[in-house]
Amino acid sequence: MVNETQHTCSASSSSKSDGGSSSGSESSKDSSRCSTPVLDADRHERLREKMRRRQDSGDKWFSLEFFPPRTANAAVNLISRFDRMGAGGPLFIDVTWHPAGDPGSDKETSSMIIANTAVNYCGLETILHMTCCNQTRDDITRHLQKAKRLGLKNIMALRGDPVGEEWEEEVDGFNYAVDLVKHIRNEFDDYFDICVAGYPTGHPEAESYEEDLKYLKEKVFAGADFIITQLFFRSETFFKFMKDCQAIGITCPIIPGIFPIQGYHSLRQLVKLSKLQVPQEIKDVIEPIKDNDAAIRNYGVELAVSMCRELLDSGMVHGLHFYTLNREVATTEVLKRLGIWKEDPRRPLPWAVSAHPKRRVEDVRPIFWASRPKSYIYRTQEWDDFPNGRWGNSSSPAFGELKDYYLFYLKSKSPREELLKMWGEELTCEESVFEVFTSYITGEPNKNGYKVTCMPWNDDPLATETNLLKEQLEKVNRRGILTINSQPNINGKPSTDPVVGWGPSGGYVFQKAYLEFFTSSEIVTALLKVLKKYESRVNYHIVNVKGQNITNAPDLQPNAVTWGIFPGREIIQPTVVDPVSFLSWKDEAFALWIEQWAKLYEEESPSRMIIQYIHDNYYLVNLVDNDFPLENCLWQVVDDTFELLN
Amino acid sequence: MVNETQHTCSASSSSKSDGGSSSGSESSKDSSRCSTPVLDADRHERLREKMRRRQDSGDKWFSLEFFPPRTANAAVNLISRFDRMGAGGPLFIDVTWHPAGDPGSDKETSSMIIANTAVNYCGLETILHMTCCNQTRDDITRHLQKAKRLGLKNIMALRGDPVGEEWEEEVDGFNYAVDLVKHIRNEFDDYFDICVAGYPTGHPEAESYEEDLKYLKEKVFAGADFIITQLFFRSETFFKFMKDCQAIGITCPIIPGIFPIQGYHSLRQLVKLSKLQVPQEIKDVIEPIKDNDAAIRNYGVELAVSMCRELLDSGMVHGLHFYTLNREVATTEVLKRLGIWKEDPRRPLPWAVSAHPKRRVEDVRPIFWASRPKSYIYRTQEWDDFPNGRWGNSSSPAFGELKDYYLFYLKSKSPREELLKMWGEELTCEESVFEVFTSYITGEPNKNGYKVTCMPWNDDPLATETNLLKEQLEKVNRRGILTINSQPNINGKPSTDPVVGWGPSGGYVFQKAYLEFFTSSEIVTALLKVLKKYESRVNYHIVNVKGQNITNAPDLQPNAVTWGIFPGREIIQPTVVDPVSFLSWKDEAFALWIEQWAKLYEEESPSRMIIQYIHDNYYLVNLVDNDFPLENCLWQVVDDTFELLN
Repeated sequence: MVNETQHTCSASSSSKSDGGSSSGSESSKDSSRCSTPVLDADRHERLREKMRRRQDSGDKWFSLEFFPPRTANAAVNLISRFDRMGAGGPLFIDVTWHPAGDPGSDKETSSMIIANTAVNYCGLETILHMTCCNQTRDDITRHLQKAKRLGLKNIMALRGDPVGEEWEEEVDGFNYAVDLVKHIRNEFDDYFDICVAGYPTGHPEAESYEEDLKYLKEKVFAGADFIITQLFFRSETFFKFMKDCQAIGITCPIIPGIFPIQGYHSLRQLVKLSKLQVPQEIKDVIEPIKDNDAAIRNYGVELAVSMCRELLDSGMVHGLHFYTLNREVATTEVLKRLGIWKEDPRRPLPWAVSAHPKRRVEDVRPIFWASRPKSYIYRTQEWDDFPNGRWGNSSSPAFGELKDYYLFYLKSKSPREELLKMWGEELTCEESVFEVFTSYITGEPNKNGYKVTCMPWNDDPLATETNLLKEQLEKVNRRGILTINSQPNINGKPSTDPVVGWGPSGGYVFQKAYLEFFTSSEIVTALLKVLKKYESRVNYHIVNVKGQNITNAPDLQPNAVTWGIFPGREIIQPTVVDPVSFLSWKDEAFALWIEQWAKLYEEESPSRMIIQYIHDNYYLVNLVDNDFPLENCLWQVVDDTFELLN
Repeated sequence: MVNETQHTCSASSSSKSDGGSSSGSESSKDSSRCSTPVLDADRHERLREKMRRRQDSGDKWFSLEFFPPRTANAAVNLISRFDRMGAGGPLFIDVTWHPAGDPGSDKETSSMIIANTAVNYCGLETILHMTCCNQTRDDITRHLQKAKRLGLKNIMALRGDPVGEEWEEEVDGFNYAVDLVKHIRNEFDDYFDICVAGYPTGHPEAESYEEDLKYLKEKVFAGADFIITQLFFRSETFFKFMKDCQAIGITCPIIPGIFPIQGYHSLRQLVKLSKLQVPQEIKDVIEPIKDNDAAIRNYGVELAVSMCRELLDSGMVHGLHFYTLNREVATTEVLKRLGIWKEDPRRPLPWAVSAHPKRRVEDVRPIFWASRPKSYIYRTQEWDDFPNGRWGNSSSPAFGELKDYYLFYLKSKSPREELLKMWGEELTCEESVFEVFTSYITGEPNKNGYKVTCMPWNDDPLATETNLLKEQLEKVNRRGILTINSQPNINGKPSTDPVVGWGPSGGYVFQKAYLEFFTSSEIVTALLKVLKKYESRVNYHIVNVKGQNITNAPDLQPNAVTWGIFPGREIIQPTVVDPVSFLSWKDEAFALWIEQWAKLYEEESPSRMIIQYIHDNYYLVNLVDNDFPLENCLWQVVDDTFELLN
């Protein structure tokens, strides 16, 4: 629906709740909703309920394990990976706990912050690992409190490895994962879903396989909700383990951990850490090709696919957990070949939802941040109420300041050198800026032969939907209408439409045409004259960096520009043009000229001064064509404006 | 949109607020809305603001004065008149205060209760008269508090006539209207809009015309917002009065009181009471025709039209106040000839809004009460929150009980004898009931030659919109699908459409097809089989009097069945099918069989037992076709059901 839309929302394939008939007298079931329709059961269920529902419906699922990155740059890349792999529809991801890496801190590379980012900014159901050995009761409680505050709802309770070689039991301390499980249940009641680890061949330090199973049972009986297993190399290993678990009374879900072999080195390292035996027949294949990464990976994919098929076909396994090692290719390949990677996951809403519990009823956002959803989430993280509380009401909690444009989850994925190649090593006039915008729209290389794949306002190439408007967008950008956001009008397309669809199936989606751009005051003067002709049809907001604001919007009312009609539900209107938040967006949109673009150049340089001039003198304009069933008139408005200027 | 829709909403012709451009930096204007779009400035403004806006826009208006009725039956008729005359779009009505009739009591004929009914049940902006002489300060305060509690916002402050012949000033009492004005402002600050009376020829008891003007000025300076004048017979009288008022500094609106002469007797009586002189030229015309009511009325209409034209053409007069004497014909005729009667007032919402301040944000109702809006208002009068608070939430404040089916504003307009003629002196079988329903739909006389113009669930003939469905409705009622509510599907008609339009102009309205009926358990059994085929398309609720409830609605979510998209606004969805309130409606719908129909017959009589049988054994069914852009499939559902039964 915009120049760039991120499809990072979790899959909602089967949000249909019990559609059967329920007999009996008045239901006394209490719904917690007030004015927000329940869009999607997925957003309201806890992880263990989602698991149960998927098991009941026979809908197979997968999950992905990641470890926290070492550097801030690696964190930026990992988050992009969350977005891309999130698009495949994992039921959850999990983030490991690295005791050595200050895992509970606010560092951008800590386990806590990476898990926080996954939940809040990428909208992924997330499990945070937590180890307990060598930690005080208070430390653990503090970590858990922080996790809860950040919106994390699931903990993988682990013992962790002792610091020294020798293992010493601490009196009154946490010596085993079961102590952590008990502590979580004692201190946080049923708030967290708890996962524990299972060892299909026994924990390497356990006295015996049988002894280890007893420990597992203790963990489950202490309050764990499900089990994820250590990796294994043969499906029989898992089947035996599962039967043995059931035999001693473990009935919770047991999710097999899958490790697609991705390289010789990583396999060796993992085996060393986990103290697992690699079967001889696998060694026999790998040793001869150990220097051929691609060959090993292909073999690893084959092996994983064939084992996963056995697991799924058994009927005993409903979900598969992947140890990704933070890599994308092998796991994605396995998932695609298994047919459980969602090529085009149904979007519950047109924008990427956040998985923080307080945002689970959020169903409306201003259109302005459509290409910067993480910035929107960041700037509204202190809000107590979603979705409303602010719309049309300037006394509501304000948008947070975006002081640091290099917050790691908002940082551009491209380094300075690349940006300079795309946006121009040297700008000579305003028209050279127009050309950059035009290249971004067309996808054609700029005059120096570089494709412009991102802009300060859009960190990704043009969205599919915006491609529908490409021809007109190109034309107007060439002439100095510098577009940063747009959507076509839609008059009732099926909610399953691959480009513009969202929400439950069987519905219809609608849009009003929208166009947002920077332009010069000369063009604004002409535009305002033209807009008089369209007074009753087009709503506009025109503002400059100083906040001079010209609008024909009635009062402070938001204008719904995207809405959907669904069977058996209230109307959903997820996107609005809101006059109040436009003024907050204006600050951000103008600042991006300076922070992302002007600062690429030396102070006082002509290039920098051109961007500064635009920042100081241009206006940010948004236009809505209210007559959505008719042909979009906004292009005619722009044409009329240029005609008036000639 | 339903079998019967009452168009009693106040006119909203010009709800457009300042559409001009506003310059300057961030507006700090605080809007009070939370999730409800401001539909219509009319609903949020106080009377004096409405008056000012109409004056500024040059949009002429009128108002209507009524007195409280003497009997409960007369009250029922007066309320029907409020609905009919309300449809012409008065800016307000006012209800006089009859000290002899216990005016502040809870009697159904008291001034207080009639004004309450006008505001809450007829949605009319209402001024309650109040006189102060011979009343204690406490009495007055109590009346005002009660008026406020009932949602009344405007008071006409009058002295009233002394009880005896002699006028005695009371120390510390209320001797003049100005005392009442001061008291209202002292005790209630700016809560009420206050109107006072002006006497274009001077008050009959005033020492002089000039002296009387001074009193008027005192009243205005004490806090009155506008003036309504006593009746007069020549426009010059009013123009002189207005100039004299302005000359002494009275600047508030002065509204001329118009009295269309409707009969010889009523004119004489009024003249006696008001001590006015009827000009000789009028007497000369009337005396010779004093026994010809029609001739006098025609003359009165002519006279009033010509004087009103002079008043309006002067540019000094923006609104006209009519002394109706509780009669309809003459005033309506004058208004129509002046062109200020709104033939088809724009509806702000598809249902008749209530004018109680706490309901001014109400913008959604369940469809079930569409033909019984007064019952809905009555049953929700204790709610604190509108529009929401209940939808989909069974723990919200419950619907009030409808214990007395003869509450005067819910009482049928037809007496028992007429109902028996329409619904059958004697019923012989269920089919004779089917015939009554069918006659109501077709408008054809029943087998005894009487037209069926109302039903227990619809006190008025079929609505225009329902006529669109007439042919199909006739067919299904003949076969025992006894329809009580229905609407066609609408896929984006202009909001100005004369039949289905509502809301501000420039918008589009939509509907899902809806059908609600009583039917036998045999038909329900077949229907349920058929509905399986339509599972994803049709939502249904099927319930019997005992509360056995069969539905495929997801959870307790409401299904929006009427909505509108407007320029520069959020989506408005004024009508929903709400599973929770359906169970409250069910009680009422079933009870109407007994209270309104069965009780017409003797106990134990066959007729009564047939209705009792239907009440005990039939189901109440509602169906929604969610696929509003396609042809309505509900008729096909019914056809399939009958086919299955054959």
